[in-house]
Amino acid sequence: MSSETGHKLKISVFGQSHGRAIGVVIDGLPAGVRIDGEELYAFMSRRKPGTSRLSTQRHEEDRPVFLSGLVDGVTAGSPLCAIIENTDQRSGDYAALADLPRPSHADFTARMRYGESVDMRGSGHFSGRLTAPLCIAGGIAKQLLSKSGIYVGAHLASVAGIADEAFPLWPGRELFENIAAKSLPVIDDTAGEKMAKAIEDARAELDSVGGVIECAAVGLPAGLGSPMFDGIENRLAAALFGVPAVKGVEFGAGFGAAKMRGSRHNDPYIIENGQVRTEKNDAGGIVGGITTGMPIVLRCAMKPTPSISKPQRTVSLSKMEEATLEIKGRHDPCVAVRAVPVIEAVTAFTILDILMEEKENGSY
Amino acid sequence: MSSETGHKLKISVFGQSHGRAIGVVIDGLPAGVRIDGEELYAFMSRRKPGTSRLSTQRHEEDRPVFLSGLVDGVTAGSPLCAIIENTDQRSGDYAALADLPRPSHADFTARMRYGESVDMRGSGHFSGRLTAPLCIAGGIAKQLLSKSGIYVGAHLASVAGIADEAFPLWPGRELFENIAAKSLPVIDDTAGEKMAKAIEDARAELDSVGGVIECAAVGLPAGLGSPMFDGIENRLAAALFGVPAVKGVEFGAGFGAAKMRGSRHNDPYIIENGQVRTEKNDAGGIVGGITTGMPIVLRCAMKPTPSISKPQRTVSLSKMEEATLEIKGRHDPCVAVRAVPVIEAVTAFTILDILMEEKENGSY
Amino acid sequence: MSSETGHKLKISVFGQSHGRAIGVVIDGLPAGVRIDGEELYAFMSRRKPGTSRLSTQRHEEDRPVFLSGLVDGVTAGSPLCAIIENTDQRSGDYAALADLPRPSHADFTARMRYGESVDMRGSGHFSGRLTAPLCIAGGIAKQLLSKSGIYVGAHLASVAGIADEAFPLWPGRELFENIAAKSLPVIDDTAGEKMAKAIEDARAELDSVGGVIECAAVGLPAGLGSPMFDGIENRLAAALFGVPAVKGVEFGAGFGAAKMRGSRHNDPYIIENGQVRTEKNDAGGIVGGITTGMPIVLRCAMKPTPSISKPQRTVSLSKMEEATLEIKGRHDPCVAVRAVPVIEAVTAFTILDILMEEKENGSY
Amino acid sequence: MSSETGHKLKISVFGQSHGRAIGVVIDGLPAGVRIDGEELYAFMSRRKPGTSRLSTQRHEEDRPVFLSGLVDGVTAGSPLCAIIENTDQRSGDYAALADLPRPSHADFTARMRYGESVDMRGSGHFSGRLTAPLCIAGGIAKQLLSKSGIYVGAHLASVAGIADEAFPLWPGRELFENIAAKSLPVIDDTAGEKMAKAIEDARAELDSVGGVIECAAVGLPAGLGSPMFDGIENRLAAALFGVPAVKGVEFGAGFGAAKMRGSRHNDPYIIENGQVRTEKNDAGGIVGGITTGMPIVLRCAMKPTPSISKPQRTVSLSKMEEATLEIKGRHDPCVAVRAVPVIEAVTAFTILDILMEEKENGSY
Repeated sequence: MSSETGHKLKISVFGQSHGRAIGVVIDGLPAGVRIDGEELYAFMSRRKPGTSRLSTQRHEEDRPVFLSGLVDGVTAGSPLCAIIENTDQRSGDYAALADLPRPSHADFTARMRYGESVDMRGSGHFSGRLTAPLCIAGGIAKQLLSKSGIYVGAHLASVAGIADEAFPLWPGRELFENIAAKSLPVIDDTAGEKMAKAIEDARAELDSVGGVIECAAVGLPAGLGSPMFDGIENRLAAALFGVPAVKGVEFGAGFGAAKMRGSRHNDPYIIENGQVRTEKNDAGGIVGGITTGMPIVLRCAMKPTPSISKPQRTVSLSKMEEATLEIKGRHDPCVAVRAVPVIEAVTAFTILDILMEEKENGSY
Repeated sequence: MSSETGHKLKISVFGQSHGRAIGVVIDGLPAGVRIDGEELYAFMSRRKPGTSRLSTQRHEEDRPVFLSGLVDGVTAGSPLCAIIENTDQRSGDYAALADLPRPSHADFTARMRYGESVDMRGSGHFSGRLTAPLCIAGGIAKQLLSKSGIYVGAHLASVAGIADEAFPLWPGRELFENIAAKSLPVIDDTAGEKMAKAIEDARAELDSVGGVIECAAVGLPAGLGSPMFDGIENRLAAALFGVPAVKGVEFGAGFGAAKMRGSRHNDPYIIENGQVRTEKNDAGGIVGGITTGMPIVLRCAMKPTPSISKPQRTVSLSKMEEATLEIKGRHDPCVAVRAVPVIEAVTAFTILDILMEEKENGSY
Repeated sequence: MSSETGHKLKISVFGQSHGRAIGVVIDGLPAGVRIDGEELYAFMSRRKPGTSRLSTQRHEEDRPVFLSGLVDGVTAGSPLCAIIENTDQRSGDYAALADLPRPSHADFTARMRYGESVDMRGSGHFSGRLTAPLCIAGGIAKQLLSKSGIYVGAHLASVAGIADEAFPLWPGRELFENIAAKSLPVIDDTAGEKMAKAIEDARAELDSVGGVIECAAVGLPAGLGSPMFDGIENRLAAALFGVPAVKGVEFGAGFGAAKMRGSRHNDPYIIENGQVRTEKNDAGGIVGGITTGMPIVLRCAMKPTPSISKPQRTVSLSKMEEATLEIKGRHDPCVAVRAVPVIEAVTAFTILDILMEEKENGSY
Repeated sequence: MSSETGHKLKISVFGQSHGRAIGVVIDGLPAGVRIDGEELYAFMSRRKPGTSRLSTQRHEEDRPVFLSGLVDGVTAGSPLCAIIENTDQRSGDYAALADLPRPSHADFTARMRYGESVDMRGSGHFSGRLTAPLCIAGGIAKQLLSKSGIYVGAHLASVAGIADEAFPLWPGRELFENIAAKSLPVIDDTAGEKMAKAIEDARAELDSVGGVIECAAVGLPAGLGSPMFDGIENRLAAALFGVPAVKGVEFGAGFGAAKMRGSRHNDPYIIENGQVRTEKNDAGGIVGGITTGMPIVLRCAMKPTPSISKPQRTVSLSKMEEATLEIKGRHDPCVAVRAVPVIEAVTAFTILDILMEEKENGSY
């Protein structure tokens, strides 16, 4: 499944719905770093379902068990393996789907890729649930980054077309913590209320909505990354498209830049506190694949949850004829909500990987 | 510079403005495939500057010389190296910039990354020119793909906010060739005229404009790719962000999907000519990282050319004080125009790489 | 710790002595293949300590638990994670060593690499024990290979300078099974008895002995592999040096070839059963990095167990003065004995990886 | 052909006998380092044929032309491409071989791998000639390493069973330079004379001889490398088996260790000049995949040149019948002689790659 990413810090995710556990191996962590288990669990809880009516009601305890790599809470330098046991495997919910692939779900493509031997019920459950191990890796990466004064945070930039405020030019730790503490991770609570209503409306109509997640990383030095294929944007995009439902990734002004003139888009250099900075940050902190020292700002387009309870048109793979599908069970009406910490997680461990590679870069 | 990409088909680009030549090594091509040199040169000519007033007037002959890997026009199975000699190196144009980094250009970040030893004049010229070797690799990949009935094409989806028609549900070889033959690669000529005027206006005002490139790949089988970090979207995005000026990549409905409800976004499965297809293609041909068999459709946001002749605010790195910069010389007022074949090229060699990984060795 | 290997079939090992478990993630296995748990356990038992006086008496149950990747004993296409719980962690045995690095053991280099935060007691136990997860991966690989008529086997080519018979030109499944069933895996039992006595003598004298393991893989087609850096020899050697105590790897005549003339070393081509073969196999089945179709034959030099009970000279790292070390506890007097299945395992999963890369996807 | 190696410092070799040039792209060199062209050429001249009767008489000028990556002799931070033009392509010498594969040469395996489209005449010439670009990369790496006080040197440890002295415990720059200045790179000139005679005898009898090359790297810090699959031995072996004719690689005592007892093999730690060192170096400077700070010492077994003029038995691939082959043309009677700088080169760029990755390792 190629569930691996990273150069110096390698993340290898495993698990499917029918197994005993899901988990992650993190290879390359420095030795001797204390990991705060409660802080990690608090971070992971942000993606847990069932915390509000806005997400699915399934129970997932999701407290990680460390099999290796930690001794008395301190990294040992050996690969860290953490697992989450599967306790709630109501696969019956998916039983009817075996022959009728859910539109815009991986049922059909997984069968084309892996053959009939693959249980389609599992493949669906698979994707969303595997973001929990990503959060283990990302939560640990966030702790390491914060020791170097680097903070990563995200919010719902929009849901169903309802926009939150954008991040300020210099977001910081406090803002990130404020957002994380809310039931809906937004900056502007009024926008948040409208989003909540749009999500509720979609659920009531057996439907779902999409959204955009904006993520920022503050505190990175200028000069990280490389031109062409090993740039910061390449590395982050390659990892972020691994999060289920992501259909677009943009940096700084992103697609908005395509409508601008150069005189509007270019970020003028200024001197601030004796340092070269830019007056604004339409580059999203990255020019030519290399960090400018300004915050990295990126946005991910999250498609609406494909599993909706409304009747849908599909085909029967066994009969090769068109059919109607009604999906039972409870599903998140908006995957973007729970994906906010996941995008933070993937951003964090990718940046940590880049940083570990680049330490002392060029100083040969 | 980490100018490498690919798993089974490895592309390694080299060159900078002051050297004798730029070029590419392509490692992993199957042996025994005839490469049509004229077709390759015709493809490469599409990114050449100086073909119209809409692009820069510098001359670049850009006819590739094959140093290895081809015997009598047939691939030998050994790494193919092709170079383009540097003939027009008017570095004087860039001389004044050494101390004043151009806003949103890689001058500043390259210096932070590589130190003062790096000649900033070269770094600027560097990026755009290195897309020629990418086109060599992509042009060869396009020839190999077409032998398997796979076609890749692109057009300017928008320039300065002026939109072209979108690709139809099933674009094909003929449409791609029609577009490629135009001076401005669009579907709708009326839109093209408006774009041309917007570009001319920007040039007249010493400014530049951005644009969006839409690229499609038709003919791929369903079931290519892998979930999570080795999906088609991850691979393509990782490579596409290597093209200078790309600030966003989206697949299918992309950021538009974030505003949709699931019932609108999901692509219903249908039976067509005895095959499972989708009625529409908001997934862009990829679900769960794996191809559906529908055309792959992606869009890249291209920022406006950062090199504009209008006076701009920057800083003097030696004096650490704010300064005004006026860039002399001729620059493309819209990099998106010449980037169209480059996006095709990168899409083509990435898809070929994925396909070669998935295929029986030697049986291409 | 960079405990990863493989291109298409990725093996990621984790675990250290103080953790709850050790294990392996195997990413890239084809879906739908039945794994025989008893056969796997029987294979793993061959590396278990405590089965005779010739190895250490510690108990390790080493029965793998599958956390993911298997559904009802059949591979699911998702990453397979298997763990072995740590039950016997008598770290007290190692307590005295913290300050006195054991000669030719990783204590000192691990501290130089990871700093004082790394508990040296663990690093010692670490290495040997982690060969159990390698055997899980290798045991599974052997089952997949045998479904394609490819068999991998190994024997003790020599111990303490006492030589076993070499493999015949065409070893096969039956010979491999005969060898595996013996308490000391040799072809010639007389040689085996002498080896056993040499090991016993070394143990009685609180010392240890080295040995050479010869491994063969039969049934591979000609034409696998690539010249230069991705050849079969490169790939196998890169993996085999990951087995603790390996200090040399040679193929075919190996170091013996260096003493030969070309007329003696060159393998004449012959026709046999309508196929091109070689009359002898001093190439070890590999020429120019590519398989000839003859058996792959390789040998690994295993150094004597560094943990010996004889008093040894070392230094106190805290006092920076010379000291004498006496290691308590029980240790294998000859690591080569238990390493035989480990060398088979690493050879098997590396060959499977190479084969999967070269094969049409899913058609395994 | 997968002619690539390296993690942070990537080496990509290209070329075959029928092309215009052979060469190498080196990606990842730090910017701002002056390369001494004469020193590089002097190093490369050591592998040139035709310098004595002991090697083939073909002329190869082999002076590298830098296409990119160097500005006024200083690295620019962009990928360095250097080529050597092919001037002497007497392919006629090989014409008769097309149907009769040379024993223990890559003719047969290349055809099995790449099909009939591959011109077998080229494949033979190919391998040996491509060691010139390896020497470009290695010669540059040696210059960078020496700026950090790290020196790499090699000698003929044996030819046709005639042994040179082994390296002393601490070889150094002066010894390496003395050896390099000799027509036959040995420590003991008496042994050298015997080797020269053995080579001459083999040539006179239309035959060839093998040899062993011993290579050392001095000045590396302790603590470089990682356990398991990313150890120093894994990395070096993976690269060294890319040199044509290498059939075995061993470190320290290597295969000799397999005959020793632990009490004889273990290297006692001592304090010397306030540093922890070992009294002897049977570990070859590497324990557990990590450097000890002692010199790295390795040996490569080089098979005898497979191209010999004596009549040999082979088969006609077109007629599928046994045949006799007489190879015309001049060939090195002992490839080990010219391979000495090649082994140095590969060792040097692999160590530089490791060093660049490990800078500030563990210091997160």
